[in-house]
This record gives sequence, C-alpha cells and structure tokens, in this order.
Amino acid sequence: MREAFHDQLDSMFNDLAGICRLVEESVRLSTAALLTGDAEIAERVISADAEVDRARERVEETAFSLLSLQQPVAGDLRTVVAGLRMVSELERMGDLSVHVAKIARLRVPHVAVPDVARPTISRMAEVAEDMVTRVSHIIRTRDVEAAIALSHADEEMDQLRRTSFTELLSADWTHGVEAAVDIALLGRYYERIADHAVSVANRVVFVVTGQNPAAVGS
Amino acid sequence: MREAFHDQLDSMFNDLAGICRLVEESVRLSTAALLTGDAEIAERVISADAEVDRARERVEETAFSLLSLQQPVAGDLRTVVAGLRMVSELERMGDLSVHVAKIARLRVPHVAVPDVARPTISRMAEVAEDMVTRVSHIIRTRDVEAAIALSHADEEMDQLRRTSFTELLSADWTHGVEAAVDIALLGRYYERIADHAVSVANRVVFVVTGQNPAAVGS
Repeated sequence: MREAFHDQLDSMFNDLAGICRLVEESVRLSTAALLTGDAEIAERVISADAEVDRARERVEETAFSLLSLQQPVAGDLRTVVAGLRMVSELERMGDLSVHVAKIARLRVPHVAVPDVARPTISRMAEVAEDMVTRVSHIIRTRDVEAAIALSHADEEMDQLRRTSFTELLSADWTHGVEAAVDIALLGRYYERIADHAVSVANRVVFVVTGQNPAAVGS
Repeated sequence: MREAFHDQLDSMFNDLAGICRLVEESVRLSTAALLTGDAEIAERVISADAEVDRARERVEETAFSLLSLQQPVAGDLRTVVAGLRMVSELERMGDLSVHVAKIARLRVPHVAVPDVARPTISRMAEVAEDMVTRVSHIIRTRDVEAAIALSHADEEMDQLRRTSFTELLSADWTHGVEAAVDIALLGRYYERIADHAVSVANRVVFVVTGQNPAAVGS
C-alpha cells in the first residue's frame, strides 16, 4: 500500500515536471512572438495552452484519487496538497505567457517592444524562462539547494521591473502611451511568472524538508 | 464523527466568509485611498493585509486537520480541498487591493487617477467591491443561483477594461505616460479581483452541486 502510494506520488511529480516543461516552451515561444512580431508563433502559444489545462486536470484527478483511496496523513498528506497547489501555479504561469503572446498578436505587423525597451524586456523574459527551466529540474530532482537559490533570481526580476519603469517614464521616451502600457503589462506578466516559479520551488522545499524555506536557510 | 466533521466544515466556511469580509474592506479602503490620494488610508490597507494572511493560516490548519483526522472521501474530500483553494484566492484578492493602495501611496500628494479616467476606474472599483460582497454572501449561504449570477458581473468588468484602454489610448489623453501606466495596472488589478471572485463563487457551486457551473446552468 505504502509503496503503491509513493509510486503514484512520484508519478504525480513527474507529471508536474512535464507541465513545467510545457510552460517553459510557452514562455520561450511567447517571447519569440513578442520580440519578432510573429502572429503565427503567438497563435501557437495561445492554442497550446489547452494542453496545460488537460495536464492539470490529470494531476488533480491523481491527487484526489491518492487522497481518497490512500488516505495519507502528516507529511504524505501535505505532499499531495502541495502537488495540487503547484499544478494551479504552473497553470497560471502558462496563462501569463498566453497574455504575453496576446500582446504580441495585438501589435502585428509591428513589434510591441520599441528598441529602447528591448534589452530590459528581453532580459526579463530570459530570467523568467531560466527560472521556469530551473523549476522543472527542481520538481524532478527535489533539489532543495537549487530551490532556495531560485529566490535570488527573483531579486534580479524586481530590479529589472524598476529599470523598465525608469525607461518608460523618462523624458527620452518617444514611443507614446500605447507602447508604455504594453511594456508595463509585459513587465507585470514576466514578474508574476517569476513569483509563481519561486512559490513552486518553495513548495518543493516544504515537501522535502517539512519546513518553509525561511526556516531552512540561505 | 460525521457530525463533528460537518461542524468543522461549517466553521471553515464561516472563516472563509470572514476573510472575504476583510478583503471587501480592503478593496473599499484601497479605492478610497486611490480616489482621494489619502496616504494614511493606503497605509492602513497595506498593514491590514497581515490579518488576512493569519486568517488564511488558520483555515489551512483546519483543512489539514480535517483531512488528517477525519479522512473524508468523495464530496466531503472535494469540499475541504475547495476550501483550501478558496482561501488562496481570497488571499490573492487581498494582495491585489494592496497593489491598488501602493499605487495610491506612490502618487501622494497627487491623485493617481486623472478626472477623465475617474468614472471608468470608479466603476471598476464598485463592480469589484460589489462582487466581493456577493462572494461573502455566497460563501455564507452557499447560494448556487447567486454564485452563477456572479459571472455576469465579470462581463461588465471586461467591458470596463476595454473602455479604460480606449480612454487612455485616445488622442485626447493629455495626462502622459505615468498616469496611463497607473490606469492600465489598476485596471488589471481590479479585473483580477473580479476573476478571483468568480472563481471562488464557482467553487461554491461545485461544493454544493458536485458539478462545475457550466454543467449546472445559465
């Protein structure tokens, strides 16, 4: 019984890592669509989101079946519930990359990001994508040190968000209100992807150690 | 045993309704701070958020204790898990009203919302606050019809968001980039509060009927 339980739990974590890889692809492609103004890639991201939703449903069914049939307690119970929360957050990260793709699509045949804002937005996208890649690894390996290290990448994201606001509010900004609003919202979406990545990593720390990251160290 | 279980479940739903009332107050006060440029009210919203966080922890502990000690299955299990999800969403709604309060505080002694944008933003805030009030009632009474009706309020919010973009992208907009970015982000925060309100209401429909709202009607 216990062994079957842990096999199912491992299988749930593999599914979570699989969803995380779908999200990684979605963040990568939505950024490509954004920076090149490619409507076809944007559409691909938007329609691929249904796959994340279906994968989420499968994880939820596995979790409910584990809770009903195996009736876990203590750490095992908290692990299953953590899995349910992780899948909601991963789904949300996918939704946020769809928002990026929709801004890209809205501005075709133009590119939403003016050249002056490109380095900061590109770097935000890189940081977000890198964080999602690291979360896939963290879910798969349950590497607590890597999970704790991830929160530092979030600090770079906060700094980039401030830089981005400085750029678009400077007297040199000549790209008008529409581009500024796009940049502000894009910054918000990448920042939220990063926030969720940290949150998923923190749940892995909790699953492995039974403690929240602040209590574990760094 | 079963009776004790349902008493604890009722108590969890009362706590959820209580958190929802805290969120309602937070949305109301953050809007007041925003529309009057009142730093003191904004600070009050920001510091009151800790109370929502503590209340969330209490609900989570109740839910874990229900799952561990009572080992619910089927509908009872789904109800407890729905409670865990509802409390995350309510906490998030509180965070979003804190974001509104922070924009208000950032612009003091000025008011972030220019007069021309005021009717639309005020109406978004009213719709959001009304939705949160209705969700408190829905959680308390588990009123499925009221929960299904709530999704229509969300349509007004979507329409208001479009109106707001039209206003700030029009040739008549003379308030510059900073105010436009504030308005775009405020619109996003109120819209997300509304989204979460609909989601919480949908979970109540699921708890009562065992089905998702689309299957129940309207």
